[in-house]
Amino acid sequence: MEKTIKEFKEYLERIRMYQEAVATLSFDGETVAPVGSIEARAKRAGFFGLEIFKLETSDEMGHFLKELAPHIETLDDVLKGEYREAKKAYDEGTKIPAEIVREMSELQEAAAAIWGQARAENDFDKFAPYLKRLIELQKKVISYRSSGENPYDLLLDDYEAGMNMEVYDAFFDKLKEAIVPLLKKIKESNKEIDRSFVNIPVDLASQKAISKLIAEKLGYHLDRGYIAESSHPFCSGSNKYDVRMTTRYLENDFLSSLYSVMHETGHAIYEQNVADEIAQTILGSGASMGIHESQSRLYENYLGRSPQFWEVIQDELLNLLPEALQQISAHQFYEAVNVVAPSLIRVESDELTYNLHIMIRYEIERMLFTEDIDIHDLPEIWNKKYEEYLGITPPTNAQGVLQDIHWSFGAFGYFPTYALGSAYSAQIVAHMKKELDLTALIKAQNFEAIKAWLGEKIHQYGRIYTPNQLMEKSFGEAFNADYYVDYLTQKYSKLYALI
Amino acid sequence: MEKTIKEFKEYLERIRMYQEAVATLSFDGETVAPVGSIEARAKRAGFFGLEIFKLETSDEMGHFLKELAPHIETLDDVLKGEYREAKKAYDEGTKIPAEIVREMSELQEAAAAIWGQARAENDFDKFAPYLKRLIELQKKVISYRSSGENPYDLLLDDYEAGMNMEVYDAFFDKLKEAIVPLLKKIKESNKEIDRSFVNIPVDLASQKAISKLIAEKLGYHLDRGYIAESSHPFCSGSNKYDVRMTTRYLENDFLSSLYSVMHETGHAIYEQNVADEIAQTILGSGASMGIHESQSRLYENYLGRSPQFWEVIQDELLNLLPEALQQISAHQFYEAVNVVAPSLIRVESDELTYNLHIMIRYEIERMLFTEDIDIHDLPEIWNKKYEEYLGITPPTNAQGVLQDIHWSFGAFGYFPTYALGSAYSAQIVAHMKKELDLTALIKAQNFEAIKAWLGEKIHQYGRIYTPNQLMEKSFGEAFNADYYVDYLTQKYSKLYALI
Repeated sequence: MEKTIKEFKEYLERIRMYQEAVATLSFDGETVAPVGSIEARAKRAGFFGLEIFKLETSDEMGHFLKELAPHIETLDDVLKGEYREAKKAYDEGTKIPAEIVREMSELQEAAAAIWGQARAENDFDKFAPYLKRLIELQKKVISYRSSGENPYDLLLDDYEAGMNMEVYDAFFDKLKEAIVPLLKKIKESNKEIDRSFVNIPVDLASQKAISKLIAEKLGYHLDRGYIAESSHPFCSGSNKYDVRMTTRYLENDFLSSLYSVMHETGHAIYEQNVADEIAQTILGSGASMGIHESQSRLYENYLGRSPQFWEVIQDELLNLLPEALQQISAHQFYEAVNVVAPSLIRVESDELTYNLHIMIRYEIERMLFTEDIDIHDLPEIWNKKYEEYLGITPPTNAQGVLQDIHWSFGAFGYFPTYALGSAYSAQIVAHMKKELDLTALIKAQNFEAIKAWLGEKIHQYGRIYTPNQLMEKSFGEAFNADYYVDYLTQKYSKLYALI
Repeated sequence: MEKTIKEFKEYLERIRMYQEAVATLSFDGETVAPVGSIEARAKRAGFFGLEIFKLETSDEMGHFLKELAPHIETLDDVLKGEYREAKKAYDEGTKIPAEIVREMSELQEAAAAIWGQARAENDFDKFAPYLKRLIELQKKVISYRSSGENPYDLLLDDYEAGMNMEVYDAFFDKLKEAIVPLLKKIKESNKEIDRSFVNIPVDLASQKAISKLIAEKLGYHLDRGYIAESSHPFCSGSNKYDVRMTTRYLENDFLSSLYSVMHETGHAIYEQNVADEIAQTILGSGASMGIHESQSRLYENYLGRSPQFWEVIQDELLNLLPEALQQISAHQFYEAVNVVAPSLIRVESDELTYNLHIMIRYEIERMLFTEDIDIHDLPEIWNKKYEEYLGITPPTNAQGVLQDIHWSFGAFGYFPTYALGSAYSAQIVAHMKKELDLTALIKAQNFEAIKAWLGEKIHQYGRIYTPNQLMEKSFGEAFNADYYVDYLTQKYSKLYALI
């Protein structure tokens, strides 16, 4: 048994080495690799993807899993986690026929290219047949793994272990019930927040200095990281010793990079804070997409969009901001970064209405997988929901149903993790406040204490536990959406003087 | 047979995918990877090195080589090249016992670290036992592959196929005979070249613009490349679609980055210019270290240090240089970049005396492998040779025998390829001048014509041929050192008005 465990761990370490290489190669591709190398890099990415797949689904892996299965309850938590992750990949990989996997990956590549054209040309009909085929094929793929579940339930579980329509329905119902009327009241309120000053130009060198200053202040270690630029900000870690982030600088919108850096810093600190013992195992990153997003949202919204943050950060930024911005008060900044303004585009939306964007996508995905709807009705369905929840109607499909890339590579069930992450963060912060005086810590710029607490409760465990196991272990309760609804209601009722 | 060839090529393509990944990962490591990830990256590099080694020396590879051997003469040139390279790696890898390989790699790692300390502390005795052990172990490693040759001959052949002491002795004898007296005459001449202006500060943004301008002007494709910064300039290609270079910017020495970029551009154009058909095969880079260096030296010295270059480039650089430098004439620049000034440090030396630095290292390596010298005599031997050939004596071992990293990882036989590259470039340029009016082309800034000619004679073939095969094929003659001796004699006799 000890020999099997040793060999199993060595085998997983090989998989991990590939994963780490792929992470760095992919970061390189998103930041500095030349455009002329796209095809060659795609070929290489395909090759390494296949090498990982071969390792994950090999007979050798099957043998390990079979040997370990009867002893699973006697193993330590790290081994249990490794077994769980390895078994999931093995089961998924071995149940689906290779032709179907290849068919899906070819369709994904074609559909992503067509989606780009369709969005540019504002032509949903161009994308529609690919989307239809993606849904059909995804259902087929899922059917090989299903033991009776609805395919969408399985997809939701893939992106966030333990989740299904029942849990998400309850979550989004609560959100809808609270936010839709709240948004209506905000719109009807007389409060007008002036945020025109946020478009005062800030030179890019200063913005870069601000990124570095804030990331480090929050606890990001630059000696184990690197801040680069890319068209869409992201965070990418090979392992805790090399966790990088990117941002995008807009001269006339310095808050865009400032908040994207805070968001990515939340992701990055999570990865940098994993326990050394599991750093280079397959458990050496975050527990799930939702838990990962909870950390980015926590840093971005609960720290960065708190009133205290602007009180303490303003002095530090003075030398880096033009004079016109030095006149703005902390309170003006606080209000400006929290303004509620329903927009058509998800990635440009505010903290409150972001959830409605996600809810619309969830509801549509749910319909696509549980009802028999005509794909050509999607634009109309989309637009009606935007009118109903946000009170605005997309003038074009490019600004509507075609705006996100996710569906073009068959990622159904992914979107809800974004809203879930925000909700997890409210729950985590509520528990944090029982033990720490968060307001005082932000005022004292004691971000180390906040990081240490998150490290103890969340970060150190990496991917050892499933999201539910982790929440139970650290907070004694499963996911609970009430915290988030309460947080949003209180924050925005106060900001818009509704109470 | 067709089936075997197809499978052999597919197998080699797998090796190539690893090589391409390693190239990008290594570039990342030298440019942006954080310092805290050194250990994790070393582990990953070791893993992928071993994966490549396993593929190169597998039973499957042995089977392919055995199957192909009887038919080798009937194969096309590309297959012959692939077979040659694969067989070389297989033979080397399978003949040497794994324990010895591991012992060598451990010794290399330890010795490289100790060398860094020894150089910093100017303490040769600290490094001496490691150097002694490296030589002994290298002799042992070679013994497994030798069928009677002197070990140093085999090492020379490893770094440049076809080379041995006999050829290098003749080459360096010629060089010594011509350059040592030439240098003496230059020193005795009254000619004083004023180059103080080269230290006028040039801001880094302008230097970066100069790098880009010159690299592109010479024919480097930025859409298949990228210019980064690192402490030591280098060029690194995954394949022709992604060939990157680095440089280092010094505010008070703008010519340093300008000439390092020209040097790396020569390497990069070679890699970008390989034929599409072999781009992603194991033959998709340069023929050898010597031929590669011939291209970098050609761009750096035959183009960049020609009188015509400064005549044509000066106008283009005007906007990028401070006013004080705008007053300098093209002729002053030409003289300044060709000044002969014997120095203690190889990497800071001029075109003429560089060869003497290499010759000294070659003579010492030759002694180490063919004579029974005491390792502790090395500093004295080193210093005497510097006095004899260059007329200067290192005041410390850090500036003497400890200056280069190469020996610390057991790279004996590497140095001579540097001088060989310069000599190849003289021979290649002599043939070029029979077909092209090089002076007129530089004056007309027609660098495309030069690149096209090199592409036809050298670049397109990648690694299909050995250096000798390539020289014979394109120029109808083997390596001939006379061209280089003539070139140096004429250029520097004229510059220093000795004729």
